[in-house]
Amino acid sequence: MHVMTTTDNPTRNGVDTATLFATLDAVKGNNEIAKFQFRATNTWVSGTHNRTTIHGFYGAMQEMTHRQPFMFDADHPPVLVGSDNGPTPVEFVLHALASCLTAGLVNIAAARGVNLTEVSSTVEGDIDLLGILGLNDEVRNGYQQITVRFKLRGDDPDKLRQVVEQSRKRSAVYDIVTNGVPVAIEVDAA
Amino acid sequence: MHVMTTTDNPTRNGVDTATLFATLDAVKGNNEIAKFQFRATNTWVSGTHNRTTIHGFYGAMQEMTHRQPFMFDADHPPVLVGSDNGPTPVEFVLHALASCLTAGLVNIAAARGVNLTEVSSTVEGDIDLLGILGLNDEVRNGYQQITVRFKLRGDDPDKLRQVVEQSRKRSAVYDIVTNGVPVAIEVDAA
Repeated sequence: MHVMTTTDNPTRNGVDTATLFATLDAVKGNNEIAKFQFRATNTWVSGTHNRTTIHGFYGAMQEMTHRQPFMFDADHPPVLVGSDNGPTPVEFVLHALASCLTAGLVNIAAARGVNLTEVSSTVEGDIDLLGILGLNDEVRNGYQQITVRFKLRGDDPDKLRQVVEQSRKRSAVYDIVTNGVPVAIEVDAA
Repeated sequence: MHVMTTTDNPTRNGVDTATLFATLDAVKGNNEIAKFQFRATNTWVSGTHNRTTIHGFYGAMQEMTHRQPFMFDADHPPVLVGSDNGPTPVEFVLHALASCLTAGLVNIAAARGVNLTEVSSTVEGDIDLLGILGLNDEVRNGYQQITVRFKLRGDDPDKLRQVVEQSRKRSAVYDIVTNGVPVAIEVDAA
């Protein structure tokens, strides 16, 4: 279906499609390559302010690191009794969702030979804090609804809509956010 | 249960507990204050590299902004055919989870009069990329399991464990990640 050599337009939408297909072939040949473990470490600073470092991960049968440690602060804004040293944790979920859907659709478009000139999105998450504040047991703690609005420009609009739909079907964060994941919490307290 | 005035140790664990309780009282008096909408905007850069801006949000019955726009890059590492300009989207989910549980437990500890001297955590998310690569329909796209390991130091260890447990029960991101949220995707393609 995808006939391509490294000399036949190997990059589309900034995606090295030759390497993308070679990676798919490598994983088909050895499924162990596909087992990844991502990691983050977080340290409390003060109040609702804390900081996460993302550096090492496991994948392709080896321990790996990003080219640098990435650090992110999270906090609450003053209206939620914080000091606004960073976005709230729930806002990072919106970022994760938009970035995953976008990376996926750009890859899918490249693989399908669909050229993109613009991809932008807005994400809105509606939340009623009566839940986390413990003031109404009928109200959930998390978002009640998330809406993502994409704007795409490039080749045929029908093809653009199709790459968004395929990205939705194959997005890790969309799956996590819509279907949930088992989370285990262990505590070392002394 | 919580008898406190602004002059009676108003700050604990860096949390302004007087303002925290005043905020709870204000929300009890008018539930509309608790309705929030958080937002993010994302723009594709190239390949799997894209950038999110987080600035405005709605809450406490008004449009608000963080004190500055916060910007975050996401990308894939070279092993996943990206340029490693930022963490992967799924790693930001781990950050969101750790930061939410941490902010929550620090607030809860402050409200309960429990002093903390250290809170740190590691989060691991196991994912099999056979899912998102479309190579095995039996494998989900997202994490199969997430494990959070907390280290807490401060007052009585039993109380420390209890604040973690209460934070889990009231965490927005823990709820999102474990129970899922409906996500709507709209596309403007031209």
